[in-house]
Amino acid sequence: MSLIVFHTIADCKAWLSEERAQKEGKSDTGFVPTMGYLHEGHASLIQKARAENDIVVVSIFVNPLQFGPSEDLDRYPRSLKQDLALCETLGVDLVFAPSVYEMYGETPIMTRIHVDQLGEYLCGASRPGHFDGVCTVVAKLFQIFAPTKAYFGKKDAQQWRILRRMVADLSIDVSIIPCPIVRENDGLAKSSRNVYLTAEQRREAPALQQALQQVLRRFQEGERNVDKLRDVAMDRLNAVPGLRLDYLSFVDDETLTKVMTVDEHHTVLCAVAAYFGSTRLIDNQELVGL
Amino acid sequence: MSLIVFHTIADCKAWLSEERAQKEGKSDTGFVPTMGYLHEGHASLIQKARAENDIVVVSIFVNPLQFGPSEDLDRYPRSLKQDLALCETLGVDLVFAPSVYEMYGETPIMTRIHVDQLGEYLCGASRPGHFDGVCTVVAKLFQIFAPTKAYFGKKDAQQWRILRRMVADLSIDVSIIPCPIVRENDGLAKSSRNVYLTAEQRREAPALQQALQQVLRRFQEGERNVDKLRDVAMDRLNAVPGLRLDYLSFVDDETLTKVMTVDEHHTVLCAVAAYFGSTRLIDNQELVGL
Repeated sequence: MSLIVFHTIADCKAWLSEERAQKEGKSDTGFVPTMGYLHEGHASLIQKARAENDIVVVSIFVNPLQFGPSEDLDRYPRSLKQDLALCETLGVDLVFAPSVYEMYGETPIMTRIHVDQLGEYLCGASRPGHFDGVCTVVAKLFQIFAPTKAYFGKKDAQQWRILRRMVADLSIDVSIIPCPIVRENDGLAKSSRNVYLTAEQRREAPALQQALQQVLRRFQEGERNVDKLRDVAMDRLNAVPGLRLDYLSFVDDETLTKVMTVDEHHTVLCAVAAYFGSTRLIDNQELVGL
Repeated sequence: MSLIVFHTIADCKAWLSEERAQKEGKSDTGFVPTMGYLHEGHASLIQKARAENDIVVVSIFVNPLQFGPSEDLDRYPRSLKQDLALCETLGVDLVFAPSVYEMYGETPIMTRIHVDQLGEYLCGASRPGHFDGVCTVVAKLFQIFAPTKAYFGKKDAQQWRILRRMVADLSIDVSIIPCPIVRENDGLAKSSRNVYLTAEQRREAPALQQALQQVLRRFQEGERNVDKLRDVAMDRLNAVPGLRLDYLSFVDDETLTKVMTVDEHHTVLCAVAAYFGSTRLIDNQELVGL
């Protein structure tokens, strides 16, 4: 079957309803919500969705709700034609590529979904309203597609944890599947925003993962004190002239609250965000106790 | 078929899934969310749901999220046994009567749904957080039951309008059906909270509807100036010694923002809330232009 592309919610619902009726019981649906400009990270999510489901849906929508007023909404990279070609290659059944008007209507959307506490630190602190925008659009997409499983990259460490909490709290019937970070050869996490980087910034950007790797190594050697682990990372990050740190945080993997030591009973998430020029990149590493 | 009563979300989902599979295509589901202590107002919603659907579900849950810290959560009246008897009489298929723990879990719910603007005036102004609590619980119940139609009384004039907006914004596949206010013989709107009233307060309480009726009469006689319509209502309300006014507001029926005149193109909602002792009662009247 070749790729179907719809731009309206009504078309998606009608198609899915028919498809599910035809497939009777064999209609598990894998969903990969994206903002387009697809890279190998997205591809890995789509491949996993394809392997685990009968129907695979990808949405491509640069969601204005999750951008702050001074953020990069207007220049966020777009490449619908290439995105569709990739989706076709990967065996996607349906791509939903709506306009902002189709998603949020004539009188702009008034509803917001907020998840408390989990959004306080990390990207939530530097991007107020960002996760409300993510939760709102994802909840809406979940209503439209009623997926069995939804796939998210672990690069956005806070995002999938917040969404997992949202679907549990609201009894939304979907499994949130976090998937491994896909990286460039030099370790830089794949991101649509990497295209913003100048050649020099691109050379410097792998420092984020290098810092996290050095933290992981010291952790594996037995260091459990967060201040000392932080020093290890900062030594590496401070050596990058073009880098401006947003945050380097050690938080509990479940509650996303700050921790001072890594104990045996909890996994700690070490997360970093930094600017190269005006481009903000993020990366993270889980430190798994016993 | 006799009434089924479940206390867990999982039981409800399993039963509904089987029931819908059996009924194939004839499984329209009518849902009446309540806080119990059912009266003839609830009964009218259930009867309408029964007439219009194949499956009828009633939830009975005193939702702590929609009570403020100084409100009547602890003393809110409960009567599960009588409620179940009424539901059985009315031909309800399933009653869902969960505990707070079943609904919101061990680590309290972190997710909130907020609808902007529509909640600014009327009860939203005097009960901060109330409608967030209503939206959150109703959205969750909608996920559990996936109803075709959900029934709400027009006494809560702001509630069904906010919920209608929420389901449109989030593409939740359910029709919100507002139903006429059911009243006592003397005009007092039926409410579970009427039981709080002393004999004297109960005698005075119909003043709310009488004030609204006088507004309606003057409106039908041609008065379009809101200040003058307000004076008519206040004359009646001021004559009640035990009544403390919370608000008397004239708002646009769609946007719920205050209006100064009633023009031909909009329906205006005249809404009132008042305390009798510590008991807060509400009522409202639509003023329909040409």
